[in-house]
Amino acid sequence: MEIIEENLRKEAEVTDNMDNITIKYVEEVELDNPILIEGLPGVGNVGKLAAEHLIDEIGAELLAEIYSIYFPPQVLVNDEGVTELVGNNIYYKKDVGAEDRDILILTGDYQGMTPQGQYMLTDKILEIGKEMGVKNIFALGGYGQGSMVSKPRVLGAATDKEMVDEAEGFGVVFDRDHPASGIVGASGLLLGLGEKVYGMKGLCLMGETSGYFVDPAASREVLEILVAMLDIEDLSFEALEDKAEEVEDLTSKVMDMDLSSNVGQDTQSEHLRYIG
Amino acid sequence: MEIIEENLRKEAEVTDNMDNITIKYVEEVELDNPILIEGLPGVGNVGKLAAEHLIDEIGAELLAEIYSIYFPPQVLVNDEGVTELVGNNIYYKKDVGAEDRDILILTGDYQGMTPQGQYMLTDKILEIGKEMGVKNIFALGGYGQGSMVSKPRVLGAATDKEMVDEAEGFGVVFDRDHPASGIVGASGLLLGLGEKVYGMKGLCLMGETSGYFVDPAASREVLEILVAMLDIEDLSFEALEDKAEEVEDLTSKVMDMDLSSNVGQDTQSEHLRYIG
Amino acid sequence: MEIIEENLRKEAEVTDNMDNITIKYVEEVELDNPILIEGLPGVGNVGKLAAEHLIDEIGAELLAEIYSIYFPPQVLVNDEGVTELVGNNIYYKKDVGAEDRDILILTGDYQGMTPQGQYMLTDKILEIGKEMGVKNIFALGGYGQGSMVSKPRVLGAATDKEMVDEAEGFGVVFDRDHPASGIVGASGLLLGLGEKVYGMKGLCLMGETSGYFVDPAASREVLEILVAMLDIEDLSFEALEDKAEEVEDLTSKVMDMDLSSNVGQDTQSEHLRYIG
Amino acid sequence: MEIIEENLRKEAEVTDNMDNITIKYVEEVELDNPILIEGLPGVGNVGKLAAEHLIDEIGAELLAEIYSIYFPPQVLVNDEGVTELVGNNIYYKKDVGAEDRDILILTGDYQGMTPQGQYMLTDKILEIGKEMGVKNIFALGGYGQGSMVSKPRVLGAATDKEMVDEAEGFGVVFDRDHPASGIVGASGLLLGLGEKVYGMKGLCLMGETSGYFVDPAASREVLEILVAMLDIEDLSFEALEDKAEEVEDLTSKVMDMDLSSNVGQDTQSEHLRYIG
Repeated sequence: MEIIEENLRKEAEVTDNMDNITIKYVEEVELDNPILIEGLPGVGNVGKLAAEHLIDEIGAELLAEIYSIYFPPQVLVNDEGVTELVGNNIYYKKDVGAEDRDILILTGDYQGMTPQGQYMLTDKILEIGKEMGVKNIFALGGYGQGSMVSKPRVLGAATDKEMVDEAEGFGVVFDRDHPASGIVGASGLLLGLGEKVYGMKGLCLMGETSGYFVDPAASREVLEILVAMLDIEDLSFEALEDKAEEVEDLTSKVMDMDLSSNVGQDTQSEHLRYIG
Repeated sequence: MEIIEENLRKEAEVTDNMDNITIKYVEEVELDNPILIEGLPGVGNVGKLAAEHLIDEIGAELLAEIYSIYFPPQVLVNDEGVTELVGNNIYYKKDVGAEDRDILILTGDYQGMTPQGQYMLTDKILEIGKEMGVKNIFALGGYGQGSMVSKPRVLGAATDKEMVDEAEGFGVVFDRDHPASGIVGASGLLLGLGEKVYGMKGLCLMGETSGYFVDPAASREVLEILVAMLDIEDLSFEALEDKAEEVEDLTSKVMDMDLSSNVGQDTQSEHLRYIG
Repeated sequence: MEIIEENLRKEAEVTDNMDNITIKYVEEVELDNPILIEGLPGVGNVGKLAAEHLIDEIGAELLAEIYSIYFPPQVLVNDEGVTELVGNNIYYKKDVGAEDRDILILTGDYQGMTPQGQYMLTDKILEIGKEMGVKNIFALGGYGQGSMVSKPRVLGAATDKEMVDEAEGFGVVFDRDHPASGIVGASGLLLGLGEKVYGMKGLCLMGETSGYFVDPAASREVLEILVAMLDIEDLSFEALEDKAEEVEDLTSKVMDMDLSSNVGQDTQSEHLRYIG
Repeated sequence: MEIIEENLRKEAEVTDNMDNITIKYVEEVELDNPILIEGLPGVGNVGKLAAEHLIDEIGAELLAEIYSIYFPPQVLVNDEGVTELVGNNIYYKKDVGAEDRDILILTGDYQGMTPQGQYMLTDKILEIGKEMGVKNIFALGGYGQGSMVSKPRVLGAATDKEMVDEAEGFGVVFDRDHPASGIVGASGLLLGLGEKVYGMKGLCLMGETSGYFVDPAASREVLEILVAMLDIEDLSFEALEDKAEEVEDLTSKVMDMDLSSNVGQDTQSEHLRYIG
């Protein structure tokens, strides 16, 4: 049987030339066995708010910017009219807490927009982490309950039973019924790919939240457990508490209005969503 | 602050760094002309239930795990709070049945999420099968009738007329009107690509089912024919029968409720869908 | 400024191994300046019916099968229960008509399912055509009017003014208002890419049709013009006329029913859609 | 019949054979530090109308055509029945305005259809621009207000504060609240990728428009500022004013009809959308 191969490679006049994921390093640092903490946008923006608060309070610095075709084709515009391409950022801080741990914090404007994008971005983050010596991951997020939550618990899931047991000692709730459908997105993949492909251990901390508003109060609960586990003392939660109060004021007003009238509600609700 | 920019112009092929499909071999085995049996999630989960039951009853062992960007970006969480990256698994068992056949069983959490993913995953499975000596494929699934089925038939389709004739001898129904739109998904592609690209022969066995609930009873009918064709004797169907009874109890209750009230129905129906 | 490159190329354990488009040649032939005629599924299946009728009447033979990840992951099942992977086919016939022209006919089960798939498949077809010496393309299709058409005209569009003028001489209508949104899909791309990338000339013939049913009558109008332009004499339209009558009978019944009752309509309409 | 099978296992990179983006150069020119002006389809077609008007008035010539799998699989058909593959075009003009600047103008039928396509196309445009010496980008577009705009302002966003300040001097409005969600699509990416990857400076000019109709009046406002910033004198706006009047006549009629009747409105509105 004769094989006839088609000539499948034309001389490419021009092809795609953008990398699917571009890493732009802002600093060059050596870290010692750093812990990777992820807080990307998601339910109630719990993870993102927690990560941003942590960055502010411990004074973490920008290590690298991540741009990608897996993010929306978009620039944000700041109050001065200056544009910024959307992406993710990795921050770092050395010698954090009583145990002088180095940490990396991942946050950003968006998660990957497609399943493929989620896999590719997470794998790239893990590869960067691996090169820097990451062996442990904390993924922060919210768990949407669909109803108002007065005292948010922090639900957990981890890559191994030892981590589950350790986290339970810090008050993390491992509830047999939650999360029923697993964990979808960056937090889930960081644990799943991190374990299977990079041999890392991971813990996901999910603050209970209604899912309707941004929820700094749930972020605080998540952070309280994180700093306890990482032996970070004296972290101020003031900025997060201020935001939580602001949200509570607005939600109360929205609820009052909901009882008396429908006017103006949309605007308020929208405002609530963007606090953070 | 020094800015370190990556070289942004790289060869086109170095953009992503995750493999689109990753195979993680758990064992190394030599098999003799193995038969590939597929039972992935689908209508009534008939194929997946059948494959899992077969794995349990003959004591098949895990050969390889398959992760892929074509699956959802998700981990499942077990009752202990431990995460597991979603994927497909290939199991194997040597010397099965009266003819001492080696078999491979493919099952998993999901089928590929896109047409391209379906093609790529199926082709990869077939390539693995080819390397192991697979020449015959049995694809197990459900055929949704849209109404309750009291005594499910097993409908068939095959890559060649000889296989059709042989299967008819075992009670498989080749109904001119079914399936009208062909077979979509992993079962269809295993037969189609298997024949056209890998020169394999394949038979698809589809247990009739309502399509509304998971259907262990249909799985049993499919398995009965499979074990007869493969000369596997004494396979116990007890576990499958127990599940079928559990489902029947719940569907009866749902139907009773349907007549008297709408309360609570959704929860029950949802429960039904996840038995398995 | 120091450049730090990440290692973007891991040792790939396994990657995708299926070609996005696979051509399986059934015969090896040398053709002399063949004309490529396309009739793929589309509005009223006008193009596909015309291409299939032409294949039958002139006794064209299968040259190559095309499989692709851009088609649905599906096998069709014939009346004997035998599966067939969906795809496109290229047929050929030498010395057709008074001018002894060689022709290639492209038809199949589906067009590409995505814009990217449309481009890739069309480009592959054109590459094959180029290698075989194709310089002229006839793309056959339907033009959906949204209302019943009693005497279908054949609308046209072409890659150059000379072809427009020539086709007008054969009764093709070049209507300034049609098609308002251009030509989408394989027919459009064969002309557009054929002209811009492969330097071919193309004519698109679109039979007016309601767009609600398969329309063998519109196919006949399109074919009448095609065979006149290609100097093919004595082509019988009997089979196409029989199908057209069958469709007309059914549509009449459906319309009668539409006036008197709604019962049974869906089944009939569905039947109508699949005649072909 | 001999079966000739293609070698089905090829290197991963030889699967598709069409370039994802194809550049077809029509002329070869050397430009001196050219400014890139973009006006692609978007809200009110403000950018596209402005770019086309500028091309006409300064007599810019076609430099290159861009075809891509990221555009729809479509040809447009002109009044003579001749087809044209959809794409983008780059025009050029030397020695424009009082400062004898060279300029490049990007316009076309569509923007990229997917986020990935947007990134890939924009990156390709920027690469071409970089090679030609582009350091400054003007992205023209509309800003949809959702209500009729009597005297459209021109809103701005820029890659740096200096450009913001300069543009403010020409009457561009940098409004803290607009655009709230940033700038999506080609205009945004040209600025974002241009700055981050190619080190270019960019300004986006957005003419306020209702968003319901094509809006030549908003295009004129945008162009007025552009020509002032580029020291282009004596540009006639007559053609744009004529189109604006035509649109205004039609919108008035539509609004009158809206008050008295609903008949015929859709057709008129549709007509309005396609003026340009």
